[in-house]
Amino acid sequence: MYPLSSSDLAEHLADVEEVLEGFFTVAVERAGSRSSAYQQLWEQLRHSARGGKRLRPRLLVCSYVCLGGTDVHRAAFAAAAFELLHTALIVHDDVIDRDFVRRGMPNVSGSYRDKAHTAGLALPLAEHRGMGAAVIAGDLALAGAYQLMRHATVDSERAEPLFALLDDAVYESAAGELVDLDFSLQHTTIANVEDIVDMERLKTAVYSFEAPLRAGAILAGASAETVRALGLFGNHIGIAYQVVDDLLGVFGNETLTGKPVISDLREGKQTVVIGFAATTPQWAEISERFGDPDLSVEAADHIRALLIESGAKAQAEALAARNADDARAVLNGPHIPARLRDSLIPLIDDAVERMR
Amino acid sequence: MYPLSSSDLAEHLADVEEVLEGFFTVAVERAGSRSSAYQQLWEQLRHSARGGKRLRPRLLVCSYVCLGGTDVHRAAFAAAAFELLHTALIVHDDVIDRDFVRRGMPNVSGSYRDKAHTAGLALPLAEHRGMGAAVIAGDLALAGAYQLMRHATVDSERAEPLFALLDDAVYESAAGELVDLDFSLQHTTIANVEDIVDMERLKTAVYSFEAPLRAGAILAGASAETVRALGLFGNHIGIAYQVVDDLLGVFGNETLTGKPVISDLREGKQTVVIGFAATTPQWAEISERFGDPDLSVEAADHIRALLIESGAKAQAEALAARNADDARAVLNGPHIPARLRDSLIPLIDDAVERMR
Repeated sequence: MYPLSSSDLAEHLADVEEVLEGFFTVAVERAGSRSSAYQQLWEQLRHSARGGKRLRPRLLVCSYVCLGGTDVHRAAFAAAAFELLHTALIVHDDVIDRDFVRRGMPNVSGSYRDKAHTAGLALPLAEHRGMGAAVIAGDLALAGAYQLMRHATVDSERAEPLFALLDDAVYESAAGELVDLDFSLQHTTIANVEDIVDMERLKTAVYSFEAPLRAGAILAGASAETVRALGLFGNHIGIAYQVVDDLLGVFGNETLTGKPVISDLREGKQTVVIGFAATTPQWAEISERFGDPDLSVEAADHIRALLIESGAKAQAEALAARNADDARAVLNGPHIPARLRDSLIPLIDDAVERMR
Repeated sequence: MYPLSSSDLAEHLADVEEVLEGFFTVAVERAGSRSSAYQQLWEQLRHSARGGKRLRPRLLVCSYVCLGGTDVHRAAFAAAAFELLHTALIVHDDVIDRDFVRRGMPNVSGSYRDKAHTAGLALPLAEHRGMGAAVIAGDLALAGAYQLMRHATVDSERAEPLFALLDDAVYESAAGELVDLDFSLQHTTIANVEDIVDMERLKTAVYSFEAPLRAGAILAGASAETVRALGLFGNHIGIAYQVVDDLLGVFGNETLTGKPVISDLREGKQTVVIGFAATTPQWAEISERFGDPDLSVEAADHIRALLIESGAKAQAEALAARNADDARAVLNGPHIPARLRDSLIPLIDDAVERMR
């Protein structure tokens, strides 16, 4: 059994792009008949949905094809549904966090804020307009996810379990987002590591890893055991990715991640690294400057040194490695066919290598 | 043919309540296993969904039963789906408008803001938390609308047109909300009446009137002509209701509407009444104080007098009456069976009578 080749995967991902482009083309054109403002909103949303790593489609398509699925068109719609859910969640997440920038570029809120501000609106009103537009855009993407999933399930006896996955993904990510919102409002009391991991799992790992992997398997008609094993694999690999993200947020290479490695410290973001640090003697010193919006580059370097000295960095690395190992163990278990195992192993390697 | 009796309608509406309660009971219980904070969010959302006039379920059930539909359980799910869509839209509308109160009580944003503020969070952060929680809650309600519509369409060959109605309702209300957002950010340039009517139609009338009426007809297996005629009726009656709402927002009886009749003037809300007034000589004087957040009761009374003197009030009343007449003409046309006509006429009377 050979793993899914990168050229085959690329071909399937091109199908997903086509589905997404088709969805947005219809919506943008129709919006033009309402108003140019509405057309612009849809174009902005299309822009937000473009250019990601397409992690969720990759996982869904990989799981589907390696488990014998042949109706790639159907899988492309389901993959596009999860990608659009992702768009909806990040657009609304940015509203909730009052972020106006994503990956170094203005996001939906940001570009509407900037346009309104340039047009003469005072900044608070311009921000208000930006966030309002982003609430609307996120709603459209969320409804779009359900629409695309309908296309994936037409005349399929697997419609109900597939929709249940989408429903659960929304439900769990909302639970995680709510916990994260509470965390974000104070950076003096740090939650314990278990609660932070649980928040990250709910907020991101479920809809990004578990759900797309399971959806691909269900669509392919895999056994309940295989679907369950993929969920477990997704759980572990999802946690590993989130913990590595937390590490990269403080210790990462800014040129590679495209994200200033100082912002998590300035925001006082409760991450797994911080959760570990909070239980060490070094925390007294770290907490003096953690969450300071004016934190200097030198002070950030000092916090980094303390995070290393306290062992928090090493503990987070160990947690990521442990979850990567657990993920590997699931793949080597009895319910994952060889081709799927061989196709998913590079994903674990990726997660661990990003850490180095 | 006898119109739908109020006791029959009440019975069907009780089914809708049961569906909504069932939906929330499952979600609240499940949320409890995540965290008490998540459970509270769901309870708050359930609270927001309670106690409205159930206009959308009434219309859907009325159209369904009067067109011969007999699977009332199915109709109850579709009706509950539109009610939950309504909940989603008002929760997000309040976020977009930065409103923390609805019908004189704290809304989702408001109760989360108040709780956070009482717990010691500074007001801006508490508002941030309130709005974040409301973004999440609205997303859950929107996804819930799609879930309930699935129950309404299980094994139905009418699933696709019904979902298309729900999709369109989301799409049109987003278009209207965006226009309203632009209107709300400035009250010096008043849009023309046609654009204001169009905004109100898109933002509210489509999902509140046209879509539920058509959904009931489609579910009942009515002819395409009847479905189309109901859409047209919904369009006219929806506009009539919105215009009357605008009138009540300035001239209404506070005890009856539960809404301070001064707030539209203080907010500088662009309504049909204001749209008419803006083209009259009285506008020069009205515009001096319109949108003043500190507008006194006396100054508001003076604006009201000017709105009457300018003829703006009479023009708005005439527009509402014209749409009510157009709605009546559709009911008397060839595609609406007598029982449905006789059941819907009280709705027109209601609209016009609220105005008096």
